[in-house]
Amino acid sequence: MTDLQHIFSLAREAGRQLGGVRSADTDRLLLDLADAIAQEADVLLSANAEDLSRMSSDDPRYDRLRLTRERLAEIADGLRHVAALPSPLGRTLKEAVLPNGLHIQRVSVPFGVIGIIFEARPNVCFDCFALCLKAGSACILKGGSDAAASCEAIAALIRSQLVRHGLPEAAITLLTTRESTAELLRAREYVDLIIPRGSRRLIDFVRENARVPFIETGAGVVHCYVDADADLQKATAIVTNAKARRVSVCNALDCLIIHRQRLKDLPQLCGPLLEKGTVVEADEASLPFLPGAVPATEASFGTEFLALRMAVKTVDNLDEALRHIQTFGSGHSESIVTENEATARRFLAEVDAACVYHNAPTSFTDGAQFGLGAEIGISTQKLHARGPMALEEITTYKWIVRGNGQTRP
Amino acid sequence: MTDLQHIFSLAREAGRQLGGVRSADTDRLLLDLADAIAQEADVLLSANAEDLSRMSSDDPRYDRLRLTRERLAEIADGLRHVAALPSPLGRTLKEAVLPNGLHIQRVSVPFGVIGIIFEARPNVCFDCFALCLKAGSACILKGGSDAAASCEAIAALIRSQLVRHGLPEAAITLLTTRESTAELLRAREYVDLIIPRGSRRLIDFVRENARVPFIETGAGVVHCYVDADADLQKATAIVTNAKARRVSVCNALDCLIIHRQRLKDLPQLCGPLLEKGTVVEADEASLPFLPGAVPATEASFGTEFLALRMAVKTVDNLDEALRHIQTFGSGHSESIVTENEATARRFLAEVDAACVYHNAPTSFTDGAQFGLGAEIGISTQKLHARGPMALEEITTYKWIVRGNGQTRP
Repeated sequence: MTDLQHIFSLAREAGRQLGGVRSADTDRLLLDLADAIAQEADVLLSANAEDLSRMSSDDPRYDRLRLTRERLAEIADGLRHVAALPSPLGRTLKEAVLPNGLHIQRVSVPFGVIGIIFEARPNVCFDCFALCLKAGSACILKGGSDAAASCEAIAALIRSQLVRHGLPEAAITLLTTRESTAELLRAREYVDLIIPRGSRRLIDFVRENARVPFIETGAGVVHCYVDADADLQKATAIVTNAKARRVSVCNALDCLIIHRQRLKDLPQLCGPLLEKGTVVEADEASLPFLPGAVPATEASFGTEFLALRMAVKTVDNLDEALRHIQTFGSGHSESIVTENEATARRFLAEVDAACVYHNAPTSFTDGAQFGLGAEIGISTQKLHARGPMALEEITTYKWIVRGNGQTRP
Repeated sequence: MTDLQHIFSLAREAGRQLGGVRSADTDRLLLDLADAIAQEADVLLSANAEDLSRMSSDDPRYDRLRLTRERLAEIADGLRHVAALPSPLGRTLKEAVLPNGLHIQRVSVPFGVIGIIFEARPNVCFDCFALCLKAGSACILKGGSDAAASCEAIAALIRSQLVRHGLPEAAITLLTTRESTAELLRAREYVDLIIPRGSRRLIDFVRENARVPFIETGAGVVHCYVDADADLQKATAIVTNAKARRVSVCNALDCLIIHRQRLKDLPQLCGPLLEKGTVVEADEASLPFLPGAVPATEASFGTEFLALRMAVKTVDNLDEALRHIQTFGSGHSESIVTENEATARRFLAEVDAACVYHNAPTSFTDGAQFGLGAEIGISTQKLHARGPMALEEITTYKWIVRGNGQTRP
């Protein structure tokens, strides 16, 4: 057994113990942890300062790495919120008494051990620990090295609360080395599920190397189709919100698909975005209607911009819009703006994506917005979970069968 | 685009079309196909005879490969049964109107294209096609080469019905070469889900090579724990049924765990099995109580026998039984025989397996027995589906959000 396997085996054992803990007890720990964040703020901020000192403040990741008293207060509130959510465990999902008298139940149970690989956002440590604990699983976290000191301080704080509450310290494990990621991805004996959160490169690495089941998250190439029958005012609000609310998130708009009959509305439709400095990469038909736009290239379509940049594609009808989304979408979030119910119905039925919208922006693709209470990531695959994942999505189930000596003929 | 990619792309397109077909239409096709099986029995049996002629009748797979008129009638009945099941599609799994007025629904939808790799059992072609079609997905089947002629004849019959019903022929694709398996496992652009059905070697191959999401099935190292408080008569019936009902299936018993206080009951407990010629590999404590048994070796535990062979392990208490299962079980099916409710509750809660039983044999781990109506395989993983998989388990879902121009603050 390697050192890492030994560490993983402690997580496995911790997961087993957590499966038997009452939800009132885990909720109490989360509330105490929330209080402890304020008490230990200085320790957390000084560890974070150490991380920040190693990064240029011009780095786009600097802001995501930074903790402040306000952010710590938000994190603490987040923990209290998770504590208040109903437990996802022990729900009877199906139940029947069979003709032979067997009583059969499908009941939600913890995964056991969940591995989460993320980049330099220290708050993710708190969020993932809280959700995994509430879902009865131990977590193994591998954060970006830029956040090493912050994550270590957070893990230490969490461990002190685990000890205080008589729960296993190995309910949280923090990995630090690059090699540990590769070993985590192959630790089938100890780890039940891997959730990679981050760049497409990370996801690709996980897909190539994982032997533990994993859920793909992230990459969103997002479209909004403004139909011939769109209401211009709604369309303008929706396109602006989807593109510019936050440009660095996976639900942000990448490509506006416009019906040829509405090309003349482009100046108004894109007005607010252009004012914000959005660079528009327009196809040949739309370019004349968008002063200041640059001509689209092959790379304009199918690209997740994560910036104030948007492609525009002109189509003659719904079918052409559907084909464009089918070709270039990533199955994350897609929307249509139209007042035509039949057109909307076809779009919602035929677009193959985790979240499909009619007259609403894709900015809503988010666990909290969907009323799930929290979010551990957004799945872009079809297996197990699709779209925002919260507590229910990080549980599994088992079949419990009770008999009285029945046998199968 | 390679030839295979072209074939996969036809399946992708067929999957898209199937997603829009009404369930009444697919049900009608299944009923007609059931009738056609009887009409075309000679063609099917002659193709099957060709396959059989290439296999020795001593081969344990010979019987599984063989089709007869009776078996064809059973297959046809199976299709009629699938046709009669409720559609797994379009179910609203969650629904809410959010405070901002957004209407949000989580709705079951088809996967799209499902790849199934199986060994020399021609009936699997019919079963998998029927379940995938009913679940709105095209299927790509790769059967064992031993069944090549049978599968080809079956696929031709299915295609003729698809054409007759105006549905795309590529709703079923039959792959024949070894290389096609490797390419199927990597065809992320065209295939949404892979289900391997078969030996542990096949599952291992899929795990190492798949880049398409897949569900592990199969391998069952199954235990039955006869507790100090077991009813001997129930225990005898349960152990006998679990081991001997059918020895070649994954839910068959591999290891009897016996409480030390019940060693003296072993002759009665194992009597019916010994009469059937079961070879018992007994640990040191149990060996003296089992005349004719052979001493267990290290290989006796953790082995899936798939034969009239069973290991016996002696334990001092429930904890030791749980540890044994934790160490050697494969997370498939585990059972306890006891009249002690508290002991049973702990066993059902703490054993980490797809199906856990109290006073019933693991032979019941089966989609039809569980009342799921059909079965496409038994999942031994925790992601997406656990235990018997039927129609619901081969669907995914999407989120449908309807608004009226709302934007996210």
